[in-house]
Amino acid sequence: MKAMGPIPAGYEASEDGSLAVGGRPVARWIEEAGRTPLFLYDRERIAAKVAIFREEMPARVKLHYAVKANPHGALLEAMAGMVDGFDLASRGELARVAALSVALPLSMAGPGKSDADLEAALRDGVTIHLESEGEAARALALGKALDITPIVAVRVNPPFALKGAGMKMGGLSSQFGLDSDRVPALVKHLVAQGADWRGYHVYAGSQSLSADALIESQRATLDLIEELGAATGEVPMEVNLGGGFGIPYFPGDVPLDSASVGKALGERLDALPKVYTDTRFILELGRWLVGEAGVYLTRVIDRKVSHGRTFLVTDGGLQHMLAASGNFGQLLRRNYPIANATRFAAAAAMEASVVGRLCTPLDLLGDEVELPHTEVGDVIALFCAGAYGLSASPAGFLSQPEAKELLVP
Amino acid sequence: MKAMGPIPAGYEASEDGSLAVGGRPVARWIEEAGRTPLFLYDRERIAAKVAIFREEMPARVKLHYAVKANPHGALLEAMAGMVDGFDLASRGELARVAALSVALPLSMAGPGKSDADLEAALRDGVTIHLESEGEAARALALGKALDITPIVAVRVNPPFALKGAGMKMGGLSSQFGLDSDRVPALVKHLVAQGADWRGYHVYAGSQSLSADALIESQRATLDLIEELGAATGEVPMEVNLGGGFGIPYFPGDVPLDSASVGKALGERLDALPKVYTDTRFILELGRWLVGEAGVYLTRVIDRKVSHGRTFLVTDGGLQHMLAASGNFGQLLRRNYPIANATRFAAAAAMEASVVGRLCTPLDLLGDEVELPHTEVGDVIALFCAGAYGLSASPAGFLSQPEAKELLVP
Repeated sequence: MKAMGPIPAGYEASEDGSLAVGGRPVARWIEEAGRTPLFLYDRERIAAKVAIFREEMPARVKLHYAVKANPHGALLEAMAGMVDGFDLASRGELARVAALSVALPLSMAGPGKSDADLEAALRDGVTIHLESEGEAARALALGKALDITPIVAVRVNPPFALKGAGMKMGGLSSQFGLDSDRVPALVKHLVAQGADWRGYHVYAGSQSLSADALIESQRATLDLIEELGAATGEVPMEVNLGGGFGIPYFPGDVPLDSASVGKALGERLDALPKVYTDTRFILELGRWLVGEAGVYLTRVIDRKVSHGRTFLVTDGGLQHMLAASGNFGQLLRRNYPIANATRFAAAAAMEASVVGRLCTPLDLLGDEVELPHTEVGDVIALFCAGAYGLSASPAGFLSQPEAKELLVP
Repeated sequence: MKAMGPIPAGYEASEDGSLAVGGRPVARWIEEAGRTPLFLYDRERIAAKVAIFREEMPARVKLHYAVKANPHGALLEAMAGMVDGFDLASRGELARVAALSVALPLSMAGPGKSDADLEAALRDGVTIHLESEGEAARALALGKALDITPIVAVRVNPPFALKGAGMKMGGLSSQFGLDSDRVPALVKHLVAQGADWRGYHVYAGSQSLSADALIESQRATLDLIEELGAATGEVPMEVNLGGGFGIPYFPGDVPLDSASVGKALGERLDALPKVYTDTRFILELGRWLVGEAGVYLTRVIDRKVSHGRTFLVTDGGLQHMLAASGNFGQLLRRNYPIANATRFAAAAAMEASVVGRLCTPLDLLGDEVELPHTEVGDVIALFCAGAYGLSASPAGFLSQPEAKELLVP
């Protein structure tokens, strides 16, 4: 038996013993969707996470949703009523949020913005997070050509990294942003050229479960902002502090103590000089908001034994949940939280490996996990499927049927 | 500087110094396609690989194309004129080949075939490679219900693996096929139930560059076939020997000596008892046929320096070439062969990291590789992009523009 990550708190069994999502048995959602594989995104869980943010973070810190974590249309629509803005990584994402019923402040980051991306951002009043001097020159030139004043911020490659982050994005040479020592010159240039310069974007890493590391990283970010203020003589209207709030995926992971992060951030913001009184600080979160609100449901097609090991073959696989198979940036494969959704209340009774339907041994969703007695037709739930799930997976691989997605209202 | 894999033989510069594919500069193909990122699949290179197969493999061995390696429509159409059959991994792939102008023998493998998959296979006369007793029971029942005699073969989980394979698929407990000791009972059952039983499918691994390992694996497979013949008293009409022929991707990789594999296979087949005279032997190849025929072209959007390291940011990325980023089943990231396609004839003049446009440090296409002087607007070529490229990548990630695909005629 191999350990699995913790099932997010609050998932419980319905009266029939099956997993409930949004107060209804998963079978009801599958009926509504018409089939498995199915992603459920629970709006109430997302709203609860937003409420935690509002309670724990300083009131002056705005919450932006990083669309790349999950760009599902209904989820974005729900999110539009909860957050203060959207962070975009492409003009494709811009088109998605432009279709929503609510208009929020938008920003666009990404090291490879094409002229088409920049033009779309200019036309829609998006704050462009400039990643290099070259991109700045293109944005200025396009703004002139289109007679639109570019709204810009400068993305800074910080001289520190978020310690223990799942993904470090600072402290090293990087394709993201400008090395901090080159930032003042660019800010001055932007101001001199008449751009509507808003401030900075500093992203030091993602998927951290350590409050201490986040506190340290946010402090270092604000130190850096003050240094840049001194070097430029300019006060930013807006500072995007990045994100980095992680969620537990794997055995031994414990939830982030976000209250401590909020408290320390409040203290650090209070210690800022008065000139920053009107500066808007932003946290840009994706995974932390939506990751645990997502459940991936896939049905057991076959149960087979090979050399004493039991395999549950499902109608899903890594084509929908690449990261759960251990093939997306992980050095070691570890088990996501996984359960028999049909018999969620039943006691563990067998050890099995849950696999997808692809013709590759990589397609492993649960490696020798403990499950209740499981039969063909049962539904398997893979948790932590709300962020970097379907959109971060090779959905076309082996031309298998698409997964469905449903927002649980 | 970090090493890169070898550029496949035969790629040369055109008169203007740029990379030629199919005798024309890449810029011409990009013009035809309308834009980058672009996958080019060179039909002549594929045909040359098929010709090598015909020359080196025993005449009685049929060549099937494993559609999962690359399901692009125009490529499949070209392939239909060259190979003896298609191996399918889903009913989605069946729909793709059913749309072609030529009908070839078809087989379908995969551990998670749904009833819908089985029904589609039954209706289209596809040989179903049964992966378990449970699947066999479903295929028989569906055949009865539809009044169609199922055409079936049994997939065997062999008691050995392909040594040194990129992906081992035998010798262990596995979701693929039946452990070989249970195969005779299933074969007898299928025959007794009136199924049109054709034979066996044995797949021991993939992406091997070792002729010795492939020879040993094929010998062991044929020993196993003889043992199964003795145990069942049945002579198979058809034996799918799997594939496993690899291509060089990484530094130090050398091409497979396929001639030696063919010679040894011929000798082993000649040594079979007379009852196997009419048995059709099949090799099922994907990557070896199309991998090196594919080139991924992506344009440099930005050139930037961070802490002394130069980054070339392109309009492509891991959303199209996941495996090249080192994030698809690889433990260690190594460089695929990569070049400046615009200045293919130019001497190396710089070291740079070629990255995609995604907001993740995983999006690395070439890590500190040696390139000629490279400017914004130049086109980067990533080789070995013909198999497990676009269809095996998270194309929707960050809602970036789709890559185009073009068969070079």
